[in-house]
Amino acid sequence: MSVVTDGASASGVGVARPRIEAPSKVTGHARYVADVPMPGLLHGRMVMSPFAHARIISIDRSEALAIPGVHAVLIWEDLPIKGGAGRAAEPLARDEVVFAGQPVALVLGETEAIAEDGVEGVLVDYEPLDEVVDLRAAIETSAPPARVGDSEDESDAEMHGAGGEGQSAVDEGALPVNVIDRKLFSGGEAERALAGSDAVVHGRFRVPWIHQGYLEPQVATAWPEPDGGLSLLSSTQAVFWVRQEISRLFELPLNSVRVRAGTFGGGFGAKLRLIEPLVASAALAAGRPVRVAFTRSEDFAAANPCPSLEFDLALGADADGRFTALTGRILIDCGAFPDSAPAALAGTRVGGPYHFDTWSIETVAVRTNRFGAGAYRGPTATQSTFAVESLVDELSAKLGVDPVTVRLRNAPETGAKRMDGIGWPPIGFRETLTAVAEHPLWAARADVAPGEGVGLALGMFPGAKQGAGAVCRMDADGGLTVVSGYVDMTGTDTTIATIAAEVFGISSEMVRVVAGDTSGAPQAGVSGGSMVTYCLGSAVAVAATDARQQVLKVAAQELEIDEADLEIVNAEVRPLGSPHKAISLAAIGAKVTGFGPYAPVEGHGSSVPPELAPSVAAALVRVRVDRDTGETQILEYVAAQDCGRAINPALVEGQMRGGAAQSVGIALYEDLAHDDAGQLVAGTFMSYALPREAECAAQNGLTWARGRTHPFRQPIGW
Amino acid sequence: MSVVTDGASASGVGVARPRIEAPSKVTGHARYVADVPMPGLLHGRMVMSPFAHARIISIDRSEALAIPGVHAVLIWEDLPIKGGAGRAAEPLARDEVVFAGQPVALVLGETEAIAEDGVEGVLVDYEPLDEVVDLRAAIETSAPPARVGDSEDESDAEMHGAGGEGQSAVDEGALPVNVIDRKLFSGGEAERALAGSDAVVHGRFRVPWIHQGYLEPQVATAWPEPDGGLSLLSSTQAVFWVRQEISRLFELPLNSVRVRAGTFGGGFGAKLRLIEPLVASAALAAGRPVRVAFTRSEDFAAANPCPSLEFDLALGADADGRFTALTGRILIDCGAFPDSAPAALAGTRVGGPYHFDTWSIETVAVRTNRFGAGAYRGPTATQSTFAVESLVDELSAKLGVDPVTVRLRNAPETGAKRMDGIGWPPIGFRETLTAVAEHPLWAARADVAPGEGVGLALGMFPGAKQGAGAVCRMDADGGLTVVSGYVDMTGTDTTIATIAAEVFGISSEMVRVVAGDTSGAPQAGVSGGSMVTYCLGSAVAVAATDARQQVLKVAAQELEIDEADLEIVNAEVRPLGSPHKAISLAAIGAKVTGFGPYAPVEGHGSSVPPELAPSVAAALVRVRVDRDTGETQILEYVAAQDCGRAINPALVEGQMRGGAAQSVGIALYEDLAHDDAGQLVAGTFMSYALPREAECAAQNGLTWARGRTHPFRQPIGW
Repeated sequence: MSVVTDGASASGVGVARPRIEAPSKVTGHARYVADVPMPGLLHGRMVMSPFAHARIISIDRSEALAIPGVHAVLIWEDLPIKGGAGRAAEPLARDEVVFAGQPVALVLGETEAIAEDGVEGVLVDYEPLDEVVDLRAAIETSAPPARVGDSEDESDAEMHGAGGEGQSAVDEGALPVNVIDRKLFSGGEAERALAGSDAVVHGRFRVPWIHQGYLEPQVATAWPEPDGGLSLLSSTQAVFWVRQEISRLFELPLNSVRVRAGTFGGGFGAKLRLIEPLVASAALAAGRPVRVAFTRSEDFAAANPCPSLEFDLALGADADGRFTALTGRILIDCGAFPDSAPAALAGTRVGGPYHFDTWSIETVAVRTNRFGAGAYRGPTATQSTFAVESLVDELSAKLGVDPVTVRLRNAPETGAKRMDGIGWPPIGFRETLTAVAEHPLWAARADVAPGEGVGLALGMFPGAKQGAGAVCRMDADGGLTVVSGYVDMTGTDTTIATIAAEVFGISSEMVRVVAGDTSGAPQAGVSGGSMVTYCLGSAVAVAATDARQQVLKVAAQELEIDEADLEIVNAEVRPLGSPHKAISLAAIGAKVTGFGPYAPVEGHGSSVPPELAPSVAAALVRVRVDRDTGETQILEYVAAQDCGRAINPALVEGQMRGGAAQSVGIALYEDLAHDDAGQLVAGTFMSYALPREAECAAQNGLTWARGRTHPFRQPIGW
Repeated sequence: MSVVTDGASASGVGVARPRIEAPSKVTGHARYVADVPMPGLLHGRMVMSPFAHARIISIDRSEALAIPGVHAVLIWEDLPIKGGAGRAAEPLARDEVVFAGQPVALVLGETEAIAEDGVEGVLVDYEPLDEVVDLRAAIETSAPPARVGDSEDESDAEMHGAGGEGQSAVDEGALPVNVIDRKLFSGGEAERALAGSDAVVHGRFRVPWIHQGYLEPQVATAWPEPDGGLSLLSSTQAVFWVRQEISRLFELPLNSVRVRAGTFGGGFGAKLRLIEPLVASAALAAGRPVRVAFTRSEDFAAANPCPSLEFDLALGADADGRFTALTGRILIDCGAFPDSAPAALAGTRVGGPYHFDTWSIETVAVRTNRFGAGAYRGPTATQSTFAVESLVDELSAKLGVDPVTVRLRNAPETGAKRMDGIGWPPIGFRETLTAVAEHPLWAARADVAPGEGVGLALGMFPGAKQGAGAVCRMDADGGLTVVSGYVDMTGTDTTIATIAAEVFGISSEMVRVVAGDTSGAPQAGVSGGSMVTYCLGSAVAVAATDARQQVLKVAAQELEIDEADLEIVNAEVRPLGSPHKAISLAAIGAKVTGFGPYAPVEGHGSSVPPELAPSVAAALVRVRVDRDTGETQILEYVAAQDCGRAINPALVEGQMRGGAAQSVGIALYEDLAHDDAGQLVAGTFMSYALPREAECAAQNGLTWARGRTHPFRQPIGW
């Protein structure tokens, strides 16, 4: 393994450092949501549908309610939901079950065991309906409807940067019963360009449903507050989104809903908002605190995994390998609830990091009797990469042009129009591709043993952005506290502390990061979309700059020296050239928190980056395929990532390793499969083939390239 | 009763409105600190000394520890205190007991009853020492020392604006054994001026120890955090002070101590920091959450009441009643712990609202075997008023000049030097005095029935100031959330909401105030010293102004209209003259919390007022005195208060009524008396004569005068 590091600064930027919260996690001291005690807690256990599609005839709760310690058995009618739409507004099935595992009742018990006993005592009478499970079968005109009744749908597509120019609804009369939406994304005269190409390749690619594989299953606790409000402690990546959803569902004022994130046990996009409506409904209905913690099996059966996509694509090029057109259709399996399905994203992302002059892509969002779809590490980007990169390799072979050369010839020029109509920002296309192509493995690709092969691929996530606020306060001892209403994930607390330290001019040990709840912390975006360091980090840099200026102003008054002639070194403010006249930050901290004449030092930043920060990744692998069994073994894995400046190389490396492992799973092993009746056949970690350490151990090269300037260096300019 | 109101604004400034939190309190839903459940909680009950002064020979814990459910019996040696000084560093007596009721051990039990049983089982062997209880006896050279061993003392005087010019330590060799400190406060040639006066009056005035009489006894809960930090939930007026003290005592980094204030059940200065060191020590020693909740009797016996002061004063004047000099001595009973005793304050406050050309006041801080002293509604101001106003009346009689005239002749000119060397700001001296003097009761004072009398008095609290930070955020629904790390008290949440609403231009119902904990909220000062509305209110006004500007900027972009041409009316931003083109605040809230292009609206204020805001109060009463029994009945009570602009007249009136009631108690009833052996003889509400409603019902006139401009109207100018 080789890791290339940027120049490291004294503050810690560029230095690999352990995550601040790691000790509490590895020693078992960290309290996750399910660990936090709550007096008067009721435990909720779900009665889940065994049918993928059925009508609920009746629910008999009497036997369950007779069990001592069973507080209530809630069904849809009991939930105090007043507004909202989509899956959130239907945390228990109304009268129609639309996937196997869907909760139809919630038993509240004084203990989890009692509630579980209660689940056994709830008798649900179902009338099975025809289910539709296969994506392609679902769009046949003869297909049974995956949902008979009405459903109000909505989409989260905005986070992932969907939309833009060149997008139009396809209107060819009534849509097939399970087609929720069709859209055409086009630019230029793609069909004509394809017809005039020197070479054209076609292919069909399907990626199955994938579970995000987080360690901590979905869990949340909710409790009514004495003032009529509602508080939640949840394993969520998005406290403000949860607040907004809960506010809307129960028609509560936003500021009477308080959402706090627990110590986070993994999500990868799956924990934006899923379980909270059910838990909040129950707490309001019962008037007591309620927790629902999914078991592992429930999490497999009833969460929001990454949906299946099927691509039918044609890629054309001229004799030099310059792309002429990309055309085709993408089927997106939205499952039973299209709320969070990335249907609209697929149409603009399919091109990955390449520039196309013409394209014509139809997206078809399809309803099936599977769970609702969720996000997973750059929704649709990974699947698109599989499809397009396979075609690029075929095209290269057909043209007899080196596949790296073909890729380089289609790198976008900065400013040229992307498929979504936005101009291409500078991206690390060449840097990442070159990094893997210059690896000795690529040069030696022809010399591999029989049954082995070497391949490379390039992918891109276009990035996301959301406004973020942060404050940076000086404590009475001269330390800094950074606060924002975000969720610590993937070591972001550590990164945030480093950014604040760098900008302020101290060591990151003097910075504490508080990820506050929605009641009092600055508004921040979702911890997801690859945007925490980019968006929140920028706001933190602004806040730390502000705090630094305030501190220098105080020091200037105390020392009677112009601010411009002061510097912060070794936790002191020193006059340039006269370090012995320094005043310590601790002394300033005491002054600004005392009885005047200084106001508290409160640095503030609230910003939104003007553009997205796309990230390109390249992978180079050597594999051995057993021609008899099809077993594929990864022998070498080289990854290159365009990450901007690596603020904490250890965390970048961790992300790259994690991403590589997950790509191995998606490419070779994972499939959250249902049988034809819609029954999950891979619903435990025994049957669901998450790659193990052995299957990911081949990572022998990691590198990153600087494709962008450092966002936190120009904080004021945003 | 008549109340004079200022002009009311649409936002609610000047409008009497109920306290936001009142419903939760009057319906019993509010959770005070002792009500908040805490899993794994240990209850602490104190073993208290029966002697006022004694040496601890031994403590036998075996019997207590044998009781099932008694977790531990802590003595001084068990406490993990590493730093600090004064009473805080000695939450259990070391080897010497210095007041009756002092905790000498803490029993931790699984229930409060078990801990109480444990207290019975702790056998302490004391060697009684001579105690000294009387203030005057304590300064005799023959007096026994109130403390034999060493004690490190410190003072809180800064909050109350002590110090300044003309103050010098008195050094006449060794001080008497119980005199902690002597200081001389002088200006001009006071003795000569007194000798040349046309009239001189002398008097000795003693005010006894007074309990602040809060409803909720002292209580705090502390628990160790998994990361090695410590959290506290406390009934405190000063979360940041508590944090600092705990950090110092246990040598914990400031930011690993988190202090949250509970719903506050009254303090009047008594809850700055008292019980927290004991509770925190126990939690750290036990490694579990610990709560100590004083019983009423314990609170009488072992808290920090308002100390006794004795004044020996001489006041001189010329024939017109113009004061020539104030001279004399003030004894301040600091009890056993002088930490929070207002000794240094008395010297500059004794002159009240009057201007003196010459003065010479000696302050003598005395140690006795009583509890430690604490603050109470403007420390030393009330007692000084009693002394000086009595002398002023005598002087008026001696000179044959109307007492109102004499007072008016000694009103300070703005800018003239006060006794503390600071220039007099504008004060409401004439306005408040005139307000009561113009009341019909004053004109009719000669016509009262036999045994009745009419008197008036004028007092002043010089004010305090402390830097404060606040943020004002726009929520996704367009509402505002104001956050600061302060403690809601006397309706300040309501006032803060009104200030934010006024400045922003919305109704106060759209504002929610969050009093945050020390981990994430902006630094704010103590809720005390008459400075919350003045200091924090100013910061909130700055923050709301900032938020407003940010909102107008967004609206200007959305509407493509210059910011200067926009106004906020009815929860909308409207172009002046084109109200139909408005954009709602809710729409703006959604935009600034979504996916750009706008940053979140985060208004910030951090400020410290440039000068103090003294407040003058005048009282006019008619009393009937039974010449045989001495029983005094208040028949009429007229109060005038200089409060600046009354932001919420209902709260100002509440403060005036409360202050009047407490003055009745101090003047006529209350005395937290000890016998000669230092045993408390008035340690319950049966024996301690807190005035009842009947004794305070005579308030028949309340008014206020505007002595200052509105602090929150010129927020930027500070």
